[in-house]
Amino acid sequence: MGQSMTTRGEDYAQWYNDLVLKSGMAEYAAVRGCMVIKPYGYAIWEAMKDVLDRRFKETGHVNAAFPLLIPKSFFSKEAAHVEGFAKECAVVTHYRLKNDGQGGIIVDPEAKLEEELIIRPTSETLMWNAYKGWIQSYRDLPLLINQWANVMRWEMRTRLFLRTSEFYWQEGHTAHATAAEAVEETVKMLNVYAEFMEGTLAIPVIKGVKSESERFAGAVDTYTVEALMQDGKALQMGTSHFLGQNFARAFDVTFLNKDGERDLVWGTSWGVSTRMMGALIMVHSDDEGLVLPPKLAPIQVVLVPIAKAKEDNADLMAAVNSMADELRRRGLRVKVDDDDTKRPGWKFAEHELRGIPVRLAMGGRDLENSTMEVARRDERSKETLPLNQVADRVEALMTEIQTNLFERARRYRDGNIQRVENFDQFQETLELGGFVHAHWDGTAETEAAIKEKTKATIRCIPMDGQELDADGEGVCVLSGKPSARRVLFARAY
Amino acid sequence: MGQSMTTRGEDYAQWYNDLVLKSGMAEYAAVRGCMVIKPYGYAIWEAMKDVLDRRFKETGHVNAAFPLLIPKSFFSKEAAHVEGFAKECAVVTHYRLKNDGQGGIIVDPEAKLEEELIIRPTSETLMWNAYKGWIQSYRDLPLLINQWANVMRWEMRTRLFLRTSEFYWQEGHTAHATAAEAVEETVKMLNVYAEFMEGTLAIPVIKGVKSESERFAGAVDTYTVEALMQDGKALQMGTSHFLGQNFARAFDVTFLNKDGERDLVWGTSWGVSTRMMGALIMVHSDDEGLVLPPKLAPIQVVLVPIAKAKEDNADLMAAVNSMADELRRRGLRVKVDDDDTKRPGWKFAEHELRGIPVRLAMGGRDLENSTMEVARRDERSKETLPLNQVADRVEALMTEIQTNLFERARRYRDGNIQRVENFDQFQETLELGGFVHAHWDGTAETEAAIKEKTKATIRCIPMDGQELDADGEGVCVLSGKPSARRVLFARAY
Repeated sequence: MGQSMTTRGEDYAQWYNDLVLKSGMAEYAAVRGCMVIKPYGYAIWEAMKDVLDRRFKETGHVNAAFPLLIPKSFFSKEAAHVEGFAKECAVVTHYRLKNDGQGGIIVDPEAKLEEELIIRPTSETLMWNAYKGWIQSYRDLPLLINQWANVMRWEMRTRLFLRTSEFYWQEGHTAHATAAEAVEETVKMLNVYAEFMEGTLAIPVIKGVKSESERFAGAVDTYTVEALMQDGKALQMGTSHFLGQNFARAFDVTFLNKDGERDLVWGTSWGVSTRMMGALIMVHSDDEGLVLPPKLAPIQVVLVPIAKAKEDNADLMAAVNSMADELRRRGLRVKVDDDDTKRPGWKFAEHELRGIPVRLAMGGRDLENSTMEVARRDERSKETLPLNQVADRVEALMTEIQTNLFERARRYRDGNIQRVENFDQFQETLELGGFVHAHWDGTAETEAAIKEKTKATIRCIPMDGQELDADGEGVCVLSGKPSARRVLFARAY
Repeated sequence: MGQSMTTRGEDYAQWYNDLVLKSGMAEYAAVRGCMVIKPYGYAIWEAMKDVLDRRFKETGHVNAAFPLLIPKSFFSKEAAHVEGFAKECAVVTHYRLKNDGQGGIIVDPEAKLEEELIIRPTSETLMWNAYKGWIQSYRDLPLLINQWANVMRWEMRTRLFLRTSEFYWQEGHTAHATAAEAVEETVKMLNVYAEFMEGTLAIPVIKGVKSESERFAGAVDTYTVEALMQDGKALQMGTSHFLGQNFARAFDVTFLNKDGERDLVWGTSWGVSTRMMGALIMVHSDDEGLVLPPKLAPIQVVLVPIAKAKEDNADLMAAVNSMADELRRRGLRVKVDDDDTKRPGWKFAEHELRGIPVRLAMGGRDLENSTMEVARRDERSKETLPLNQVADRVEALMTEIQTNLFERARRYRDGNIQRVENFDQFQETLELGGFVHAHWDGTAETEAAIKEKTKATIRCIPMDGQELDADGEGVCVLSGKPSARRVLFARAY
């Protein structure tokens, strides 16, 4: 097939990198740590955005656009936020280039900014600075705003989609009259994320709360959705933060409540990013290439006529095109691959690499028999069906494959959550990969000690109702001190 | 109405600024020259993006995402491009902040980049740098890529939407096997823009070619669409560039042609931006506020029940809500304004300010008579209709208002294109505003002299077939030298 790719068993990280590059999803850009999302990858991201954006609007949110650059002094306004974000970031110090008189260009030393500007790593400060002017009374609340944006965090070790200096995301920033409403919003958006991930990405997630040390800088509580990759490492899929009155206080955002008194506003923020692209790849794909859920696949069905040249067989082409039309009428995204210069075997490998959920092939004998071969990407299985059954079958396969991917990922995930009772078990189990469900004494010291010894972090304190029995009280696996409930540990991306 | 706004006659620039702020479209951000696009303005921009994005895809283009930052050395690769763009731009020189030990934060002097990075003012260099790896043979062509992005040009004098340091746009960058195909693409996309502007924005445009001095830095030819604002100044609505082989040469992008020979690729680029928001406002709006074409209005119809309080009149509310439902069933974007705390007069003014195309009002007498008042924003006229005629009328008004706005703008524009035969006439006519259609000797010297004397620039050399008679040969209004054809001059934004 000419597409030799490292297998997962050989080297998972290399397999991932090969797959992203060879399937045409993304590549590294000229600037270190930044990526180019290529058209095939971008089409998947656009499909994700469409579904999410519709859900945000259905839940009452509106989009807006806030600036890329943040004055340095903004960061100093919220104490925890400055610690968390005013570190590795891109700093704009000048606003002009000029010729050096020798054919090159240099930064004009006279065009130095009075105050340096930071490329946004996240936009809480910019939004709350604007909200001060937008919110006067309880009538202006809740303020439910989202933006789709690029952000930048200067990363030393990068990996396509999973950790890049520039990445793409949405960030919702809302303001409310009461703490209860803000908490409700925080949890509501976490649920929107979880439904999207399970229903569209076909990735099962665990919802939970972060420990204090893993909390967003400036938040009172961080809620998270966590998933398990095929190599046994966890990945944080998205977060939703209850900000309390921290940013309202920092930016002096108050409102006149119904009793005519001035009160500080309550805030939330929540975001998911192109990181989800990495998760999508890692959860479903195999050694032959991408495996895409039908709901997100840019091409859901590819049809391959098997003839020496399409001119050789007008009847074959007519049958293939007629099936393609029928599938398009049913609302499917369809491609006919009638490129004469490539052999069928090459094409099949290419379509598998690109993760197209269903492939239909028709050769001379199929034409005589009025049949087509239907191949599904997820199970790599084939069946030959009478022509008049093909369209129905393909349509049914869209749901079947979507469900199968989710169920397969859920079985894997569920089979890789292990309860342990002591630190020996903890370490042994961790080596197998997956989540470790263990008692923890609730202190940052123990959390740090476990991380130091094992590289495992607390992914979350699971929320109730997820078939993860909290198991009541116990004793911490490391310190032996009392523990109120079990939490989930894992090594993570 | 509490919304006192400068009129166009008093001060057009102030009217524009007031309108953008008071209608909730946008505001200035904390960083000088940057803007916040507020939800109402952003909803209009999203509607524009939706229509354009669909057209780009229908014409075979795909979206992708290229990085925000450009290595400084990239600019030096294309000689004209460096002159045009490596000037007023934001320069990233450092990648870390740190505590100064006194509660503040400073730029870490040790975290200095080896090569400075520029926030993209446009992405030709980034794209052509990537295209080198993407294009091997004629089979890879044409490459038809677009991106929706934020870009930055450090502007000294800014105006919301019209000229801001950061702005939002789409930039198409295509690569072709032949010059003819690239020119065809350039003109095709200019036509896509013109159809969008006339059909969706309801803004008549003139298509033409730029003179050499107004050409995009790095292009062989720049095509443009030009519109006329209500103050008589022209505005460049969008441009489409034939790049020849300039960027292919600069970035060494070659392909194996059908004869097996290596050739340089031919390029185009084309873009429209949030500047169109400024044009939309300036072309249609009046002293009462925004006037939005129905195709772009976030709310197309607002219904106002006129009762002391909605509890007072359940029948009235039922009739209003039933009409709203009927209009929604017909696919219209509808809002019922049943806010008890505002008087109808205040609401009417607010809806006019926001440019909602149609307002329906129903009071107690209307209920008795089974009628509603239908008011259209464009003409500020009203009629009272029997209830059973309202929905049909409103639906018809969507088309009628859209057409009326376009025709009104076209009449104004056509009435403000004046032919002149000498420089006295040129200067007199220019003072009246509008386009001046005059002979020019084709030299950059004369063009510069005219600009120096009058502040008028050559907006374009009009393309044929636009009812602008080129009028054959003549003599230049300034130099008296021979002129091949008339061109369009104007003062411009």
